[in-house]
Amino acid sequence: MGDNLKTLSLDEVAQHNTSESCWVILYGIVYDVTDFLNEHPAGPQAILRLAGKDATEEFDPIHPPGTLEGYLSSKTKVGKVDPAELAKKAESGVAASTAPERDPPLESLLNLDEIEALATKKISKKAWSYYYSAGDDLWSKSYNNAAYRSILLRPRVFIDVTACDLSTTFLGHRVGMPIFVCPAAMARLAHPDGEAGIARAAARFGAMQVVSNNASMTPEQIVEGAPADQVFGWQLYVQKERKHSIAMLERIHKLPNYKFICLTLDAPFPGKRELDEKMQWEGSGAFTVTAEGKGANERRPGGGGVGQQLFWGTASDLTWKTTLDWLAAHTHLPIVLKGVQTHEDAYLAAQYAPQVKAVLLSNHGGRALDTAPPAIHTLLEIRKYCPEVFGQIEVWVDGGIKRGTDVVKALCLGAKGVGLGRAALFGLGAGGEAGVERVLEILKAETETAVRLLGASSVDELGPQFLNTRILERDIYDGPSGLDNSKLWSKAKL
Amino acid sequence: MGDNLKTLSLDEVAQHNTSESCWVILYGIVYDVTDFLNEHPAGPQAILRLAGKDATEEFDPIHPPGTLEGYLSSKTKVGKVDPAELAKKAESGVAASTAPERDPPLESLLNLDEIEALATKKISKKAWSYYYSAGDDLWSKSYNNAAYRSILLRPRVFIDVTACDLSTTFLGHRVGMPIFVCPAAMARLAHPDGEAGIARAAARFGAMQVVSNNASMTPEQIVEGAPADQVFGWQLYVQKERKHSIAMLERIHKLPNYKFICLTLDAPFPGKRELDEKMQWEGSGAFTVTAEGKGANERRPGGGGVGQQLFWGTASDLTWKTTLDWLAAHTHLPIVLKGVQTHEDAYLAAQYAPQVKAVLLSNHGGRALDTAPPAIHTLLEIRKYCPEVFGQIEVWVDGGIKRGTDVVKALCLGAKGVGLGRAALFGLGAGGEAGVERVLEILKAETETAVRLLGASSVDELGPQFLNTRILERDIYDGPSGLDNSKLWSKAKL
Amino acid sequence: MGDNLKTLSLDEVAQHNTSESCWVILYGIVYDVTDFLNEHPAGPQAILRLAGKDATEEFDPIHPPGTLEGYLSSKTKVGKVDPAELAKKAESGVAASTAPERDPPLESLLNLDEIEALATKKISKKAWSYYYSAGDDLWSKSYNNAAYRSILLRPRVFIDVTACDLSTTFLGHRVGMPIFVCPAAMARLAHPDGEAGIARAAARFGAMQVVSNNASMTPEQIVEGAPADQVFGWQLYVQKERKHSIAMLERIHKLPNYKFICLTLDAPFPGKRELDEKMQWEGSGAFTVTAEGKGANERRPGGGGVGQQLFWGTASDLTWKTTLDWLAAHTHLPIVLKGVQTHEDAYLAAQYAPQVKAVLLSNHGGRALDTAPPAIHTLLEIRKYCPEVFGQIEVWVDGGIKRGTDVVKALCLGAKGVGLGRAALFGLGAGGEAGVERVLEILKAETETAVRLLGASSVDELGPQFLNTRILERDIYDGPSGLDNSKLWSKAKL
Amino acid sequence: MGDNLKTLSLDEVAQHNTSESCWVILYGIVYDVTDFLNEHPAGPQAILRLAGKDATEEFDPIHPPGTLEGYLSSKTKVGKVDPAELAKKAESGVAASTAPERDPPLESLLNLDEIEALATKKISKKAWSYYYSAGDDLWSKSYNNAAYRSILLRPRVFIDVTACDLSTTFLGHRVGMPIFVCPAAMARLAHPDGEAGIARAAARFGAMQVVSNNASMTPEQIVEGAPADQVFGWQLYVQKERKHSIAMLERIHKLPNYKFICLTLDAPFPGKRELDEKMQWEGSGAFTVTAEGKGANERRPGGGGVGQQLFWGTASDLTWKTTLDWLAAHTHLPIVLKGVQTHEDAYLAAQYAPQVKAVLLSNHGGRALDTAPPAIHTLLEIRKYCPEVFGQIEVWVDGGIKRGTDVVKALCLGAKGVGLGRAALFGLGAGGEAGVERVLEILKAETETAVRLLGASSVDELGPQFLNTRILERDIYDGPSGLDNSKLWSKAKL
Repeated sequence: MGDNLKTLSLDEVAQHNTSESCWVILYGIVYDVTDFLNEHPAGPQAILRLAGKDATEEFDPIHPPGTLEGYLSSKTKVGKVDPAELAKKAESGVAASTAPERDPPLESLLNLDEIEALATKKISKKAWSYYYSAGDDLWSKSYNNAAYRSILLRPRVFIDVTACDLSTTFLGHRVGMPIFVCPAAMARLAHPDGEAGIARAAARFGAMQVVSNNASMTPEQIVEGAPADQVFGWQLYVQKERKHSIAMLERIHKLPNYKFICLTLDAPFPGKRELDEKMQWEGSGAFTVTAEGKGANERRPGGGGVGQQLFWGTASDLTWKTTLDWLAAHTHLPIVLKGVQTHEDAYLAAQYAPQVKAVLLSNHGGRALDTAPPAIHTLLEIRKYCPEVFGQIEVWVDGGIKRGTDVVKALCLGAKGVGLGRAALFGLGAGGEAGVERVLEILKAETETAVRLLGASSVDELGPQFLNTRILERDIYDGPSGLDNSKLWSKAKL
Repeated sequence: MGDNLKTLSLDEVAQHNTSESCWVILYGIVYDVTDFLNEHPAGPQAILRLAGKDATEEFDPIHPPGTLEGYLSSKTKVGKVDPAELAKKAESGVAASTAPERDPPLESLLNLDEIEALATKKISKKAWSYYYSAGDDLWSKSYNNAAYRSILLRPRVFIDVTACDLSTTFLGHRVGMPIFVCPAAMARLAHPDGEAGIARAAARFGAMQVVSNNASMTPEQIVEGAPADQVFGWQLYVQKERKHSIAMLERIHKLPNYKFICLTLDAPFPGKRELDEKMQWEGSGAFTVTAEGKGANERRPGGGGVGQQLFWGTASDLTWKTTLDWLAAHTHLPIVLKGVQTHEDAYLAAQYAPQVKAVLLSNHGGRALDTAPPAIHTLLEIRKYCPEVFGQIEVWVDGGIKRGTDVVKALCLGAKGVGLGRAALFGLGAGGEAGVERVLEILKAETETAVRLLGASSVDELGPQFLNTRILERDIYDGPSGLDNSKLWSKAKL
Repeated sequence: MGDNLKTLSLDEVAQHNTSESCWVILYGIVYDVTDFLNEHPAGPQAILRLAGKDATEEFDPIHPPGTLEGYLSSKTKVGKVDPAELAKKAESGVAASTAPERDPPLESLLNLDEIEALATKKISKKAWSYYYSAGDDLWSKSYNNAAYRSILLRPRVFIDVTACDLSTTFLGHRVGMPIFVCPAAMARLAHPDGEAGIARAAARFGAMQVVSNNASMTPEQIVEGAPADQVFGWQLYVQKERKHSIAMLERIHKLPNYKFICLTLDAPFPGKRELDEKMQWEGSGAFTVTAEGKGANERRPGGGGVGQQLFWGTASDLTWKTTLDWLAAHTHLPIVLKGVQTHEDAYLAAQYAPQVKAVLLSNHGGRALDTAPPAIHTLLEIRKYCPEVFGQIEVWVDGGIKRGTDVVKALCLGAKGVGLGRAALFGLGAGGEAGVERVLEILKAETETAVRLLGASSVDELGPQFLNTRILERDIYDGPSGLDNSKLWSKAKL
Repeated sequence: MGDNLKTLSLDEVAQHNTSESCWVILYGIVYDVTDFLNEHPAGPQAILRLAGKDATEEFDPIHPPGTLEGYLSSKTKVGKVDPAELAKKAESGVAASTAPERDPPLESLLNLDEIEALATKKISKKAWSYYYSAGDDLWSKSYNNAAYRSILLRPRVFIDVTACDLSTTFLGHRVGMPIFVCPAAMARLAHPDGEAGIARAAARFGAMQVVSNNASMTPEQIVEGAPADQVFGWQLYVQKERKHSIAMLERIHKLPNYKFICLTLDAPFPGKRELDEKMQWEGSGAFTVTAEGKGANERRPGGGGVGQQLFWGTASDLTWKTTLDWLAAHTHLPIVLKGVQTHEDAYLAAQYAPQVKAVLLSNHGGRALDTAPPAIHTLLEIRKYCPEVFGQIEVWVDGGIKRGTDVVKALCLGAKGVGLGRAALFGLGAGGEAGVERVLEILKAETETAVRLLGASSVDELGPQFLNTRILERDIYDGPSGLDNSKLWSKAKL
């Protein structure tokens, strides 16, 4: 590939840096992407900022293999560059780095905060900003965890706790523990092991993984080599261009490890993640596009971080009946609805059983709407207003889990499983596949300890009698239930 | 002007620095203001501190054009000074300034706190102290915002949120969004664009502006060039000398953009704003007037900051029936009552419809009485004790708004509009007209995001079902309602 | 006096430094106080630490004139010392002091915290430690103020507040304002103006002053030159040796400005004030007396600060009927009971009207029992359980007052007056008499502002309708009322 | 001993550092402990980390005398080492230490925090980490104390408090005060005085001591020389190998000072104490065993701190009836159940009276399950759900006691006694026996002061009327009581 292409100088390429003639270098090949600018899922700005330059380093960790071939025809190739010239230029831009400090052994990291601290040191500022960021003032992100801390445990004594079994089932599939990996995008920003590394780590614990629609590896790569009984779900952001989503569903259907579709509902519009958005102002070029970028900024004040770029093609017009009917026409897999934040929507979801088999209570890790309720709030709302939901569909939660006691608290209140988002990514950042394994190892052991010290021997024995939720109960919604609100019901178009 | 005046030396002028002979230099002309000392709206001290000196720099940003001509007859001109001598003296007082750090582009500022941070760097300490200050310990100022954070949102999912319309009406006039600019004094302290700059920025968003009675530009200047459909209100502090207020109303009536009078009730006496008051002790002269200033200090402990000076001529004797009747005799414009802080007074206000068309719930940005309730408290009180008010008059709020989620929360609870005070001034300080535009752009975008992520498409769809206000409800007044309190009713002289 | 005494060298005096022969130098005279050691009200340790040394500097600010003559007969004088030798020794112990920073003018201090900050710089560490200290962890001291902050105000608008009258009465005596000075010991530790300086400052505001039983000036000195209508009370700590208390009452009866006896009940035993106690370990000698001091430490762990020394002779066996009967036999003045902290005791006090005319709700400035309730708690308890008390006796409060809004809140809840303790002492420390005046000036002006901004014109108009106490009400005692508790009643020996 | 052993070089010993040939040096003798590796109560890792080295310093402070003889037969002795060579090696590893700062006299330390601060300076990091550490995020440890602070006292006045008697009884045995020393392991880590030093200090106050199952001295040593009426309890962790526990009970029965068996229930599995576990990563060797240690880490993530090592042989299969029946067969002493954390278990315990004579409400100093409730919560639960328990058995508490007011609050709510854990160890660290004495002296004096200032004269007079527990009551469990939960009851196998 590229053998019969003419060699271009970097200076020559650099002149094609406008929307009228836009060239970029990828893996040593020069592409003319002028015509593609408006087709790019993340908008023209995402490319224009790299116009005339080598974009490989930015492109590689966030695009699955095959992306290039899928979107750019070979006639867009206009030449190649001299690798030596490229290397020389890259070198001149790199500060003399000091010898890296030696990382502590993963075994010496004792909790998820220590894992995150190591990952923060090791990954790029851009990756950290994307992972760490959350909506507005990070209130929901922080409260997601604090809400668990406000629940007191009620340990019973004089009970034989020699044995302890964490295994359970999700949608009827047996898994090793009630902790699973949530869809979280762009794993290769943290480490080349990427989503496949997470999958291999999860396999050791029989843990379930829901793969992000915005994964940085292909769905095929991620499950490659997975045991036949390893359970995966595929997250779906329905695209404005429905055909893209349909095509993806067809690919998923060919991979038997994928057992369900996880339809994300809590981000019909991108949240405002300032840490992420701030990154576009770091480094070269940012200040020069201000005037030109004005139009885009009106749509997306603060400009586009990774989160806004990923959102670009996502549909904002999903509705209960229309979307679920459409989905039924294109997949036989059961549906899990992610992002439910009120008891009303949990109740509505249960009306769509058995097509819908579970809800994942989530405020998107605090990344969508700041001051949205933590999953534990929604869980308590469901217990209060419509507990029958627990008998109709499975209820999973995510957000704010840092300790085994957090896991146990969610399970005591009726959650069937508890998802990890950032923790898996930070594990990856701290040590690739082994880092994810350490995250799961820590949390599994903490959960076993908590189950035992409560006086139980398995997750099935857990229940609300082990908790004092009084502090939290004071804050749970007690206004009129939307279950009687005909206006909202009609919107749901049951 | 001043051509036929004799030239005086600065030393000569400097000798006239007492209450017996008081000269000041303004724009190069020397005035003898001895006879005017006791007529000055902010009291003699405000002038005496500048006696014998060039007062132009202090005078200019806080007096609208025409002030000089209106108050000082030409016979008070006693000479002129040599501009070169003045310039030389000014220069000698200026420290060699370092090259100013380049400001970040406004687009890179992502929220109102970042705007405020930049303005804090750019404006004078005096301006900052006046804007930032609030009563006593700033408790109410801080709680104004914290109260919003304690409300949780309840986002609904699976709703088409492609469209989002923020337009609404105030008193029947259509505006582009429910966010308006509150009366806030002395805009030119922040930037020469002043209140007119705010007006031009607001025009781009179809946003309403209420102009301060203490604006640093004339009401004519502020609306000059405004589109015919741009909505303005005029704030009225009734003066002890009612004739001044009547004259001002007559000027306002000639300017069709002004659609209502906003009568301020929450500052019948100046609050204690220590940051502002402290400024009189900064710089030259402060410590030498101690003995002389004693009498004044007994009346105004801490001496007079900008806030106390502005208050000087304001009436403290307004009452419901007398004042509203007087107002009816002098203006045909509808009345908005600003500073209502209890459900009792909101209820009373509604009794005066249709003359009174709205109340603006406000604790004066925390600048009047510290530990006064935030507007969101009063809003919840009205919902609890006399919800019929929402059907009789419009209810607006201000104070503590920092995020689009704050805007949405106020609207969900029945507010028709949400006002910005300091945010507009800090926007002006950060970048003049463009800075105000950035403030409005940020807040509008955040509000749209919040509306969409709640599952709504317009402000009309918002309602209390989208909120969990339980934390806040715990703190809302539940004592006996003053609606049954005959003593308070009789005071109101209905 | 001393002329016919022989001159002793400092070295000679220094040898008499044990409990077997203990000499001290006071005002240049050498006393043999060996026999007096066990009679000293603060115990032998208080003297032994100064044995063989010049004790004038420690003695002077805490003993009223006449103390020396009253306790030591002239035969204890054993000689005099050479003033020059004394001065030389003192000098050698003083570090070369830098030129003192100029204090800011009192008018530039805007609130009580700023006054305290200045006083903290100016007074000795020992004085500061005694004033600032409170029980254990200073929890009650801090909560005393925080409790006020948790009360929200409810300002009413459209009310004529041109006039504002703070005058009121205490026990039928007219005073200029509802703010009074509480008994607080050892004023001369802060400034030579002492309690008399406080009295002169209070006179300017027509403010009442309750003089401490442990004042550093005589009761005669304090009221010397006071206007006939200035109101004073005398605080009584009943002494184990009742005759001392009786003698003091007789002195008080001769001074018509003293209108009542304030009997202190909240310190039958000294609280643990660690800052104060720590002072004994500062400087020379402390570590050498450890072994000898052991016995004393068992009785008073931590050793004796100023507070414990002052307590030494105080009776711990007061009871309702016995003590009040004894008091009735020795004074015609009305009684105010200080230190009431429960509604039960307020109720009991009212049973003793008209001898008892008022209670002063107080936790001793947080200096007695840590986690004792603030006065505002007790006030709310009385309102809840036995509001009839307000009609039977006057209820005063102290502790934690820092702002005019605090004063207004106490008054709205039924307090007739509000006392200042540390604030007056810190005022004295900041500027002597003028500093106390500044404290009262600030607090009076703040109170007037708060009254006006609430929509009232005098303290009589204040009432609970101006407050939202909901946050605080949640924490008020709601257990069984001791009013029905026969065991506690019988203890009270009604 | 060892005279006829051959002398081995340190290099020679160092080669036996694997699980296939493992030698260690103890007190100058070389032992071959290869066969003992799997018998060691703390697991093979605890020894392997010292393989080939002098283990004396690590071994000595945590093993009672006789341990060596009891576990290792004389044929495991393989040689001796040259003391001079050993000393030389030790020396080379010690940094030149600066002259130690002189400690402040114990009398100058005024509260338990100051004692802890001094101990923290003086003891080894390993000892501090073991004592200070608690579960996960130390939430329960911190809340244990904070819960006391949230209780307000209600001091009564006008009561004779001259006398004050703190004496009380435990299980019918008279003690000098209601404060006792809890079982806390490894006292000699803090100071060579060890548990015997605690015992001698306690004797001075007539205070009870419960001796840890993991004491670093023998039960005989600890009570040696104790007065006949000094009360001790013996803590029992039932061992997997029951015969070890039975043997220990037999030893205890021979020592008449031991009046009861304190059976610990709150740690059937070791909590996660990260500070303690982190210590294994400090210093040499830690990073080299990673690969080999992997298997162990899967069982005990984070590796084993002192706490996990001590736990090694402990049984996890205790149950109500089986265990108590077994215990009845092996001891005539009354049983105290430690670690009860719910009212349900307190109720169950009372069903086993008179064999069970008391419960010790405890969350193990926050060291077992983080977010477990403080003892004061459980106390309030019992008062709410099953107050009859107080009449059937004694209720003791521990955890979080720092002040005399804390002691008084527990007693007012029905606790018969209040235990100190870390405080005694930190006292030992600060000054050996004298430091423990100072701890008890401080707390006794504070308790007397609190009793007096409440208006009481003895612990018998204390009761709930002296407390305002409203803040805490809000957070007490109010879910369904497990007393009606047949599932949990059946587990208890009554």
